[in-house]
Amino acid sequence: MASDLRSFFTHLYCSVCRAEHAIDEAQGVCRACGAALLAGYDLDLARRNLRPSSFEGRVGTMWRYRELLPVLDPGAIVTLGEGWTPLIRLKPGGVAAGMSSLYIKDEGCNPTGSFKARGLSAAVSKARELGIGEVCIPSAGNAGGALAAYATAAGISAHVFLPEDTPRINIQEVRLFGVDLHLVDGLISDAAKAMNERRGPAGWFDMSTMKEPYRLEGKKTMGYELAEQFGWSLPDVIVYPTGGGTGLIGMWKAFDELEKLGWVEGRKPRMVSVQMAGCAPVVKAFEARAPKSEFWEGAATVASGLRVPRAFADHLILQALYESGGCAVAVSDEAALRAMRNAARSDGVLLCPEGAAALAALPVLTESGFLSGGETVVVFNTGIAYKYAEILERSSEGSN
Amino acid sequence: MASDLRSFFTHLYCSVCRAEHAIDEAQGVCRACGAALLAGYDLDLARRNLRPSSFEGRVGTMWRYRELLPVLDPGAIVTLGEGWTPLIRLKPGGVAAGMSSLYIKDEGCNPTGSFKARGLSAAVSKARELGIGEVCIPSAGNAGGALAAYATAAGISAHVFLPEDTPRINIQEVRLFGVDLHLVDGLISDAAKAMNERRGPAGWFDMSTMKEPYRLEGKKTMGYELAEQFGWSLPDVIVYPTGGGTGLIGMWKAFDELEKLGWVEGRKPRMVSVQMAGCAPVVKAFEARAPKSEFWEGAATVASGLRVPRAFADHLILQALYESGGCAVAVSDEAALRAMRNAARSDGVLLCPEGAAALAALPVLTESGFLSGGETVVVFNTGIAYKYAEILERSSEGSN
Repeated sequence: MASDLRSFFTHLYCSVCRAEHAIDEAQGVCRACGAALLAGYDLDLARRNLRPSSFEGRVGTMWRYRELLPVLDPGAIVTLGEGWTPLIRLKPGGVAAGMSSLYIKDEGCNPTGSFKARGLSAAVSKARELGIGEVCIPSAGNAGGALAAYATAAGISAHVFLPEDTPRINIQEVRLFGVDLHLVDGLISDAAKAMNERRGPAGWFDMSTMKEPYRLEGKKTMGYELAEQFGWSLPDVIVYPTGGGTGLIGMWKAFDELEKLGWVEGRKPRMVSVQMAGCAPVVKAFEARAPKSEFWEGAATVASGLRVPRAFADHLILQALYESGGCAVAVSDEAALRAMRNAARSDGVLLCPEGAAALAALPVLTESGFLSGGETVVVFNTGIAYKYAEILERSSEGSN
Repeated sequence: MASDLRSFFTHLYCSVCRAEHAIDEAQGVCRACGAALLAGYDLDLARRNLRPSSFEGRVGTMWRYRELLPVLDPGAIVTLGEGWTPLIRLKPGGVAAGMSSLYIKDEGCNPTGSFKARGLSAAVSKARELGIGEVCIPSAGNAGGALAAYATAAGISAHVFLPEDTPRINIQEVRLFGVDLHLVDGLISDAAKAMNERRGPAGWFDMSTMKEPYRLEGKKTMGYELAEQFGWSLPDVIVYPTGGGTGLIGMWKAFDELEKLGWVEGRKPRMVSVQMAGCAPVVKAFEARAPKSEFWEGAATVASGLRVPRAFADHLILQALYESGGCAVAVSDEAALRAMRNAARSDGVLLCPEGAAALAALPVLTESGFLSGGETVVVFNTGIAYKYAEILERSSEGSN
């Protein structure tokens, strides 16, 4: 019964032109059209060899789904305990929002304190398997910290480019991991520009969101976990704070795989992107029913992880919203800070600004009639609040 | 097969005089002699109804061991996703320490970012079951935050007493949870004094370490998890940063229960207490082979969680060290900060100062011959580094 089979990963294909790419060498974006590549699996074979109960009693990390992840050599896996994060029911918070089944998926309980750990555990593991020795990333903060941690654990050199006004603790952790750090005047898009000027000559492998195919595979495990945590069923709605959008795209891919595997039935969740009023390119595009977004000028918000003026794979984010019957909404900084305070005071749950923004979208979604009170809703808290000391301070002052 | 049995909890007994206490009402310390109370279970019945495989496929929190926890009404459980934390193998870090099987149990991946969540999830759940409406705690920081979170989630009023020089973020989170906060000039022992002046007249229930019987039960789940994560065997040595010592006492209790349940065999782990040179009452007592410790005057260390001049249940800590063939060692602040930097740079792992102190004890333990290189060693990282921004700053500067 194929007990030695470790992964059903078989191919890479372009998300736009469908061109296939070899899996035994390093791949970035599509060599034909420049779009994001996606990993494909032999799901028929997986279906014959696995069932939901196969995962019981396995390691409490995202690597419990190793057959549906792209690493072929288990010895290449770089793990710091990522994934298998708590799903917490908000009882008073649900009542306040008029929702009877409201959950927080708490990604703050990840190494380096954010959901970025999943993507970078997968991508760095695969980079190690492929013999890549030097990687680089532009980041709003958390992805840089996660890459620094996983690259260090893998013995791979890393170069991290952050906006110079990134929260102090994100800068400290990158320094502490001892990797090469560059602080750039501007936004994550400027950090990317500075990185790209150096990357080619230096031969660094680009770990930017959706510019290599494997961070997405790590992120998709959030979708597998939701299925397993809900007893192999899926919630009605997923509310997701959207910067680069890899998590949302990844979960939508996971739900498609789960359907093909025959492990879940019925309608897939409606996906909701939440952005900040001060940086809402996906919301703007969604409202215009556009296939892509436009660069958001003058991006500014307290939710540093959502200060992404344009996501590289915006077409895949929008596609997931349209296909799922979802939507996109923007909330104000003030609404996010209020939601942070309310969740702490009503349910004892600390959210990061991005997770708080997602929670703050609920009244908008119920008022518009998008959400009804009896639906099962999962709000993603993408990181740990303690990485946002300045905002905690503001928020805790507001509460007294 | 007793599928409706939720807990095998049967009795409370005094850790010193063995006097039994009723379990259907609120209990603090022993009414006869004032010592700590311990929870007892019908382990024979548990053994007939459970086996190690019973836990597979269960919720990824410490409540997977609910039959061995003291809450009788599952509806009383207050959970924010605590426990079932990662066990991370330190490869380069192990090589550097001369250890082939070195692990970090990463308790930073808990709600409120510390191992305190376990104890307070158990104690607050039991308080809710018993109808207790108002609780109080003195804390060096993390326990206060955890109590604030769980009490809020339970709808119980909480009063938290912290030293006024507690790290800023610990103060912020208590404020954000909206509970009653008192900042006290002095150490945790002074915070306890200030609390005790108010507690009696106000009728608050005391949640101090080991002064009620159930925080210990939550903490003991660290021992059950180690057994399950190691495939129902136990490591040779556990290295534990020791302030109030509940985790160490709890694990030693868990190992005893696991032995009686017949789920583990062979010699139980040798327990090692690590304290700071600036506050080492347990080390001093251990070196004198004393049954109890003395109050440590002028306690001072960067590891705020270890600034505990005397643990209430010091006799149980020392008993676990003596019975297990363990020991107690003190390390300097500098050694702890160096260990923090080394773990980040070699293994991509961020430790809190207390966890770093425990790691810093390894060279002392190998040089003394206590540890040999082939043994399986687990070092506890009790909290998330991001709650220690000032120390991260110092440590990251030291690394450049």
